[in-house]
Amino acid sequence: MKKLINDPANVLADALHGVAAAHPELDVDFENRVVFGTAPRAGRVTLVSGGGSGHEPLHSGFVGDGMLDAACAGEVFTSPTPDQMLAAATKVDSGSGVLFIVKNYTGDVLNFDMAADLAREEGVIVESVVVADDVAVEDSTWTAGRRGVGTTLVVEKVAGAAAAEGLPLAEVKRIAEKVAANGRSMGVALTSCTVPANGKPSFELPEDEMEVGVGIHGEPGRKRVPLASAHDIAETIVTAITDDLDFTGSPVIALLTGLGGTPLIELYLTYGEVAKALEAKRVTVARTLVGDYVTSLDMAGASLTLVKADDEILRLWDAPVVTSALRWGR
Amino acid sequence: MKKLINDPANVLADALHGVAAAHPELDVDFENRVVFGTAPRAGRVTLVSGGGSGHEPLHSGFVGDGMLDAACAGEVFTSPTPDQMLAAATKVDSGSGVLFIVKNYTGDVLNFDMAADLAREEGVIVESVVVADDVAVEDSTWTAGRRGVGTTLVVEKVAGAAAAEGLPLAEVKRIAEKVAANGRSMGVALTSCTVPANGKPSFELPEDEMEVGVGIHGEPGRKRVPLASAHDIAETIVTAITDDLDFTGSPVIALLTGLGGTPLIELYLTYGEVAKALEAKRVTVARTLVGDYVTSLDMAGASLTLVKADDEILRLWDAPVVTSALRWGR
Repeated sequence: MKKLINDPANVLADALHGVAAAHPELDVDFENRVVFGTAPRAGRVTLVSGGGSGHEPLHSGFVGDGMLDAACAGEVFTSPTPDQMLAAATKVDSGSGVLFIVKNYTGDVLNFDMAADLAREEGVIVESVVVADDVAVEDSTWTAGRRGVGTTLVVEKVAGAAAAEGLPLAEVKRIAEKVAANGRSMGVALTSCTVPANGKPSFELPEDEMEVGVGIHGEPGRKRVPLASAHDIAETIVTAITDDLDFTGSPVIALLTGLGGTPLIELYLTYGEVAKALEAKRVTVARTLVGDYVTSLDMAGASLTLVKADDEILRLWDAPVVTSALRWGR
Repeated sequence: MKKLINDPANVLADALHGVAAAHPELDVDFENRVVFGTAPRAGRVTLVSGGGSGHEPLHSGFVGDGMLDAACAGEVFTSPTPDQMLAAATKVDSGSGVLFIVKNYTGDVLNFDMAADLAREEGVIVESVVVADDVAVEDSTWTAGRRGVGTTLVVEKVAGAAAAEGLPLAEVKRIAEKVAANGRSMGVALTSCTVPANGKPSFELPEDEMEVGVGIHGEPGRKRVPLASAHDIAETIVTAITDDLDFTGSPVIALLTGLGGTPLIELYLTYGEVAKALEAKRVTVARTLVGDYVTSLDMAGASLTLVKADDEILRLWDAPVVTSALRWGR
């Protein structure tokens, strides 16, 4: 295992110190392992997300004005605990309620549910939205139903903008659920990832094969196939996504995220093929993100997310955002 | 070789199609392989950079308002040609002159020099600044003198802001040279990179070793040593950089770039160690960037750049910038 780490058991704690050092504008709670933005103004709905670490910049890189108020960091590929989520919710709540944004993995869903109950006991109004956008498989290693992947970023951005506009909790939740319902994703892995505490690759992938529909923790996808060209990979994932939901007739937000070990030149090359495949299917891309946004440690590969965007979603997507990993508009 | 590509001979051309598809605000000249921003307003100095591909987002990711006007893309790890640079300079020149920003590799320096001569013959005033900030070695595989690495980003940002303010060419050049003189870098590789056209790793690095002072094309550095902790690596590179230039007594811009194959969680963890090492040496970091900015294809590792920043440099660093890879301030 070749990694830029110290003790494999302390990766999360050490990394949080780096986040705090690099971003003095963030408030890192080392005890609870929660990254907070600036205190929200009174009367505004607040947003809390989180999940296992190893998917950076998701979620801590999306804390800031116009997106998340707090991100709870679990150990690598492990859900944060209800205590962490409760600490986040009670700290960020301004009296107008908190929306939990949850990726659909069993541990995350259970823990956010428990945290919501605990927060309600403390008088905090909590609602949750669960993202389950990965079309690859219906159930998976740590998931009942579909896994939650790249659409989570879009939910966090769009719901964050809705909260920043001062919309009430029910409206912010409605919009978050609309984005989640309109998003679909699928990815491919060319290599495994290596969890630091394990010290070896999570799975074996022969030099001439790839995993189509891989999960962001290395969960099995649809099939192992011979390594294909970027052109053929783009065809495969675009077809899988557009077979699952009709993306014609409405503008689309497209996110092509690297999984951590793939360089940007390959992501752009692949996006070029994705764009051609989408055009052939008469899907109109209105907004694009290409880069490492929802990753899987050092896995080589990429994942495509498409979100059908009506006027409301597009307007909120375009609203100003100031976070370490996503920033535009002011 | 496991890469998201089509024909290994067409990686650059294919990737440029992806850049064009993802960024409709950019103007990609496929024939000359130059990425242009919006046309500069009359009377403004313009900035052209470029180099071999494989270091993305450097340079095309830094084309836009407040930074570069054009980036010339060579084949992977190969200098662009004088014709490309000439096409860029003649197109972006608004009559106020063009500054070439050149990383110190022999091919790049020769080609930008020749392009400057050709442009002058066409009536374009051209000045050049050469960045040679890598303290690892004095000469290297493709370099007489020190190699140019991360400080290039800071030169492009700060000189871009100076040009956007309407400063004349002599002033923009003076500021660019000041940044170049104030910047120092060094990196470590945990793995080799693989050039697509070669199909195999550029060098061999045993599972328990790392290359200290590696070049961004995989050029040899100072030494091979056993793989060390992030703490010790940070100590080594901070010491090498601060032994070369006194960084106390002035605020510093710190850039920790991944080399392409290292995930963000490891970069933040390493930056935490860098911050501690700098504090122990009484170096005051005023601004920080952590992420993949100056890469080396799929190489695992990281490189640290420090730039001494006086009030002028800090003010221009903070000025608005709108590019695909660096964006803030509006």
